[in-house]
Amino acid sequence: MNQQTECPLQEAENHPKAEALLGKSDDPRVVIIGGGFAGVELAKSLANTKVQVVMIDRLNYHTFQPLLYQVATAGIEPSSIVYPFRKIFESQSNFFFRMADALAVDTKLQMVETSIGFVHYDYLVIASGATTNFYGNQEIQKKAIAIKNLDDALALRNTILTNFEKALQIRDEVHLNSLMDFVIVGGGPTGVEIAGALSELKKFVFPKDYPELNFVNMDIHLIQSGPQLLKGMSDEAASKAKTFLQDAGVKLWLNCRVKSYDGFKVELDTGESLCTRTLIWAAGVSGKVIDGLAESSITGGNRLIVDDYSVVHGYENVFAIGDIAAMKTTLHKDGLPMMAQPAMQQGAWLGKNIQRLLAKEKRKPFHYRDQGSMATIGRNKAVADLNIFGKTFRTQGFKAWFIWMFVHLISLIGFRNRLMVMINWMWSYFTYDTGIRLIIGKKKENTPVEKMTEKVEI
Amino acid sequence: MNQQTECPLQEAENHPKAEALLGKSDDPRVVIIGGGFAGVELAKSLANTKVQVVMIDRLNYHTFQPLLYQVATAGIEPSSIVYPFRKIFESQSNFFFRMADALAVDTKLQMVETSIGFVHYDYLVIASGATTNFYGNQEIQKKAIAIKNLDDALALRNTILTNFEKALQIRDEVHLNSLMDFVIVGGGPTGVEIAGALSELKKFVFPKDYPELNFVNMDIHLIQSGPQLLKGMSDEAASKAKTFLQDAGVKLWLNCRVKSYDGFKVELDTGESLCTRTLIWAAGVSGKVIDGLAESSITGGNRLIVDDYSVVHGYENVFAIGDIAAMKTTLHKDGLPMMAQPAMQQGAWLGKNIQRLLAKEKRKPFHYRDQGSMATIGRNKAVADLNIFGKTFRTQGFKAWFIWMFVHLISLIGFRNRLMVMINWMWSYFTYDTGIRLIIGKKKENTPVEKMTEKVEI
Repeated sequence: MNQQTECPLQEAENHPKAEALLGKSDDPRVVIIGGGFAGVELAKSLANTKVQVVMIDRLNYHTFQPLLYQVATAGIEPSSIVYPFRKIFESQSNFFFRMADALAVDTKLQMVETSIGFVHYDYLVIASGATTNFYGNQEIQKKAIAIKNLDDALALRNTILTNFEKALQIRDEVHLNSLMDFVIVGGGPTGVEIAGALSELKKFVFPKDYPELNFVNMDIHLIQSGPQLLKGMSDEAASKAKTFLQDAGVKLWLNCRVKSYDGFKVELDTGESLCTRTLIWAAGVSGKVIDGLAESSITGGNRLIVDDYSVVHGYENVFAIGDIAAMKTTLHKDGLPMMAQPAMQQGAWLGKNIQRLLAKEKRKPFHYRDQGSMATIGRNKAVADLNIFGKTFRTQGFKAWFIWMFVHLISLIGFRNRLMVMINWMWSYFTYDTGIRLIIGKKKENTPVEKMTEKVEI
Repeated sequence: MNQQTECPLQEAENHPKAEALLGKSDDPRVVIIGGGFAGVELAKSLANTKVQVVMIDRLNYHTFQPLLYQVATAGIEPSSIVYPFRKIFESQSNFFFRMADALAVDTKLQMVETSIGFVHYDYLVIASGATTNFYGNQEIQKKAIAIKNLDDALALRNTILTNFEKALQIRDEVHLNSLMDFVIVGGGPTGVEIAGALSELKKFVFPKDYPELNFVNMDIHLIQSGPQLLKGMSDEAASKAKTFLQDAGVKLWLNCRVKSYDGFKVELDTGESLCTRTLIWAAGVSGKVIDGLAESSITGGNRLIVDDYSVVHGYENVFAIGDIAAMKTTLHKDGLPMMAQPAMQQGAWLGKNIQRLLAKEKRKPFHYRDQGSMATIGRNKAVADLNIFGKTFRTQGFKAWFIWMFVHLISLIGFRNRLMVMINWMWSYFTYDTGIRLIIGKKKENTPVEKMTEKVEI
């Protein structure tokens, strides 16, 4: 991956540990790679444990991924769904943070190489999460926009808005449609939520912003490889989500896959094709494995094989939690779903298990409490399959939408963020408007508009 | 400037006007270059006039520049101080917006060339504002951070925070200080406000975020070429601002200029030098003049010479308002100050004058109503020189600080932005905390930290 990783740890071996910059500690050191849901919950649960917790992340903030799609669709501020690590752990004296890329691990030396230096561990917890899976299609990877982190979400927001600014300069119908049409690949919660949010922008917001454009021309396509949306949720939820989206004017392509995309034309395996400059890729994720682990510990989807105690196959003091960990159960034969819930539960549980380990007590295996899933399509419209106290409870429409909002609000970190998101939501609900239609930062430009057309009089 | 401007308008001349993409209109067209305070007020005041208003700006949003320094110091969200043009003018049917760079003007053809096409005008209003003035020093321009637009402010925020993340890896004292020290050049309101905000971060916020660093090492230097701060304000205000800053630990360098800066060492004209990786340049601005105007219409500070009717010297239907217009008065021999107030007043007034012009009535000359100036240093600390109903009113301390907040809040565009900023301010006031300590987007890296030090154990 990185040139530095070729012989990463020889220097470290010769390096006297006493010179380490981190505060010296007699307590064992737990190094956590990644500050997602799993990493943060783990670090929190180690607050009163006699360990030194070192978290490594390439960003200085935790991202609440379930609401990234609202940043992408100009609904909420980026700062409302992210939270600086240093602030989360401000009063936890055994917590240390380093902003760095984790490059490689040497399990014999018990060292992690990062972009800023080496760090020794007694216990290593890999919570590096997942990245967008383009299934090896390099062209799509280059031309499509993913929506897995804040950079992606902002790039998508900027691209959507820039498209309409460009559309004002275009007479040619094919080029115009390519700017005003959006193709979303993947019918999971993210794909469904983006499609729903775009259809609301089309209905309530864009016609006011761009009275010169005809929004009959704006098509939103949602492509799903399987026969129904929201795989993993109930048939009831899936079919209601389908109805909601169709009512909102979203064009659904079920049992359909994208074969290729050149930045303009999307070729489908049905032989049909669509034109768009904006292909939103929400079709899958795969684990982000660090260099230096044995091949035999890696399984399908680039995830790490772990036992019921989250110990990575073949190691003793290396754990994996969250999306990166393929923990297989009787219900989930390929590993637990790559979602916030299992990650948070594993983080909190592993903290307790590390305490038991240090106290030389018997560790407990992980048991996943599935509390259900939800997806929202638009105002007053969501679907929810919930498990409450062991009882299944399914609802669609307003009630589900209200529950969705409540659950997401209380899950955000920090009172300030909850307040800000709530104000934004209430504002949008009553004004039918979104606040953040700003083009700030980078965007994806598949063929600049200058190349589409002559420079003419405005 | 731009290669395309070499012979910009020959194409346009041959281009049939009937094909123009903008809605055809029998009303005369007013083209406004720039959507700052002047441009926005002008466009608003033309709402019910029989003209077609076309605004051209390279961004899709208006920026409330007086609060940029709070974005730079992690106090408020960028989205709270900017506002999309399309939303401001959503209900103004004679308003058209184009996101583009204005490249050149041909006053004979009455055409503006932009990055996306040509636009014909009947009346042209240049409200392109000002840019940072580095007084020709290319090295400083390359290595320093300005604070004139949102990109600058975000780059400064990211740089400040990244510096401390890097400082954790440094043992060498000189390098450590270069990361933890900040040098601000320019003792006007922006320089004073940044210095004050940094000193509050040093006192209340950073020690909690970085318990591993010793903030005795963090020095804030403010360099001012003249003998006192806040030139143009009263002696009372200037001397109180000095006291406030000194009490806050800011090191003041009066009667002092920066000779050179290489990204590390700041050489002063006194022979002394300071070490910093972050030189914040708030030492001056100059006008942003568009290509194609006669040299004889340009005066000192790269501003356009205008008469009392804002007509640019040598032209009839070309106006200039705001920072770019050097409107000389008996009190202001070099032109009105480059601030929000004259810009807003000129914008609103020019709209009325254009109405008079169309109605063939006599136009009125501009009269500047100076309502005073303010600057804030920190919580409960500000200075204000106010002119209310012709009376001068000077105050410093809590009262000035409260007035400063009130005036800035009501000046923001949009209820939502006012609400968001107010919540942020109240939050910071009561918690002694700032919400937005996030590293998102680009930053300025003068010598990467990897080159400062060996890659050692963390």
